[in-house]
Amino acid sequence: MSDFQAWMAAQQARVETALTEALPEARHAPQRLHDAMRYAVLGGGKRVRPLLAFAAGELAQADPLRVTRAAIAVEMIHAYSLVHDDMPAMDNDVLRRGKPTVHVEFDEATALLAGDALQSLAFEALAQPGLADDAAVQLNMLNILAAASGSRGMAGGQAIDLESVGKPLELPELEFMHILKTGALIRASVNLGALCGKPMSEADMKNLDHYAKCVGLAFQVVDDVLDAEASTATLGKTAGKDAASNKPTYVSLLGLAEARQLAGELRADAHAALAGFGEEAARLRQLADYIVLREF
Amino acid sequence: MSDFQAWMAAQQARVETALTEALPEARHAPQRLHDAMRYAVLGGGKRVRPLLAFAAGELAQADPLRVTRAAIAVEMIHAYSLVHDDMPAMDNDVLRRGKPTVHVEFDEATALLAGDALQSLAFEALAQPGLADDAAVQLNMLNILAAASGSRGMAGGQAIDLESVGKPLELPELEFMHILKTGALIRASVNLGALCGKPMSEADMKNLDHYAKCVGLAFQVVDDVLDAEASTATLGKTAGKDAASNKPTYVSLLGLAEARQLAGELRADAHAALAGFGEEAARLRQLADYIVLREF
Repeated sequence: MSDFQAWMAAQQARVETALTEALPEARHAPQRLHDAMRYAVLGGGKRVRPLLAFAAGELAQADPLRVTRAAIAVEMIHAYSLVHDDMPAMDNDVLRRGKPTVHVEFDEATALLAGDALQSLAFEALAQPGLADDAAVQLNMLNILAAASGSRGMAGGQAIDLESVGKPLELPELEFMHILKTGALIRASVNLGALCGKPMSEADMKNLDHYAKCVGLAFQVVDDVLDAEASTATLGKTAGKDAASNKPTYVSLLGLAEARQLAGELRADAHAALAGFGEEAARLRQLADYIVLREF
Repeated sequence: MSDFQAWMAAQQARVETALTEALPEARHAPQRLHDAMRYAVLGGGKRVRPLLAFAAGELAQADPLRVTRAAIAVEMIHAYSLVHDDMPAMDNDVLRRGKPTVHVEFDEATALLAGDALQSLAFEALAQPGLADDAAVQLNMLNILAAASGSRGMAGGQAIDLESVGKPLELPELEFMHILKTGALIRASVNLGALCGKPMSEADMKNLDHYAKCVGLAFQVVDDVLDAEASTATLGKTAGKDAASNKPTYVSLLGLAEARQLAGELRADAHAALAGFGEEAARLRQLADYIVLREF
């Protein structure tokens, strides 16, 4: 196991422990709801957003205990969005990470409420005192997470995604959609991790945010590439689920080769944004590589 | 119009204006989502929770501009919960305040996302700087709202409510459900209004919280009484929608006369909790009367 893999495994374990403790116990009423919340959050996922928060926290020399709390808040938002996205009214998915989705394992009403309650719990976790030396900084962190989650962030991106099915989106519209849908929460993860630590200059925060923007977009481009490749290889079709549902993707707009090239360019941009930082940005650099180079 | 009615109308207008400004404009993308959010929140409702926040704010001599921001945060949480509760997976209601519900006027996916985005926006509104002199107090306010909204508050009460259909709930279980489902957010409204103002003693805050608890429960008991009476009068049945769907209510457990008596006792308790306060608690007293005495 490389040093980076060991670091990832350690952060993932730290997040799992913190989530296990922060989620209400399933034996407490309402039990079925708490059971569903734990089912939705625990025991799965690459925890990419927490990893980005920890890496940004290392850059800002933040107390890992603080970053952990910010990281679980972001991960709860991410988990709630998956629960709601999987519901029949949205993507109607029955499997997630090899397990039945929440509305299949429980029921639709419980999935709806579990998602709602996870969003509340995310803000509750981030509002516990002591996440920053200055409470005003912590208020700013709450603002960042709320804005990244709402109609001009993740939920808004999801709305545009739903509207786009069967419509010929142009590249700038596709990019706008992804900047909201997945990019906003990834940028929030990086910014929150950094804000847990020592104050950084405005220029440094700007570079860090640009890194996060590139990584967030690269993440989506690579997802599209992997989706298209997986189906080409295993299903013998030229594109997978997205093409089947007539959703525009980077691959459908650019073709596979150009989409791959775009991912590579975004990776280079992410590295360039970190050029002014030293060794403390090593984990951020490794994560950019990990996100772009996974599987291909 | 009585002085109290004029006060209510003035606060309701203030809330409407603030909500109109705080909600993203419908002309901004994603337009359909923003349109649905505005449809869900604007132009309707008694604004009971904001009224309670304003009344508590008067007791604490709070700046009305601050209380307005706390009030719209609570109202956005309330509005999102109605959007999700009305969906087919939950209560499957097609009308709300005489208008088609959000999933009927728009679609289920938009209703789901509009509710989600309204919850985020509530926390964003409450996290704007300057709601309290001390940012740590404001963090506490965010904690209160998040806890009141989540699985040990409103969302949890809704989960218990859904599980209880067709089951013989006992009175303590019914009370537990309502303390979470409607009581938690009503208590939060009162507490947030007070926290916008001058610091109060722990004993005073405790009395105020007890007032809120009584008012929250009374609100639900009166709802059950009105539901039963309306149908008796207009439909010729002994109970209305709740009985038809086999939901336990205060009326089904206690009978109409005893439920009315309970509402009266809770009103008296609410007044008793305010006994140590002077004229500054006048609006809180009037609101307790308004909530219990409406329509009967």
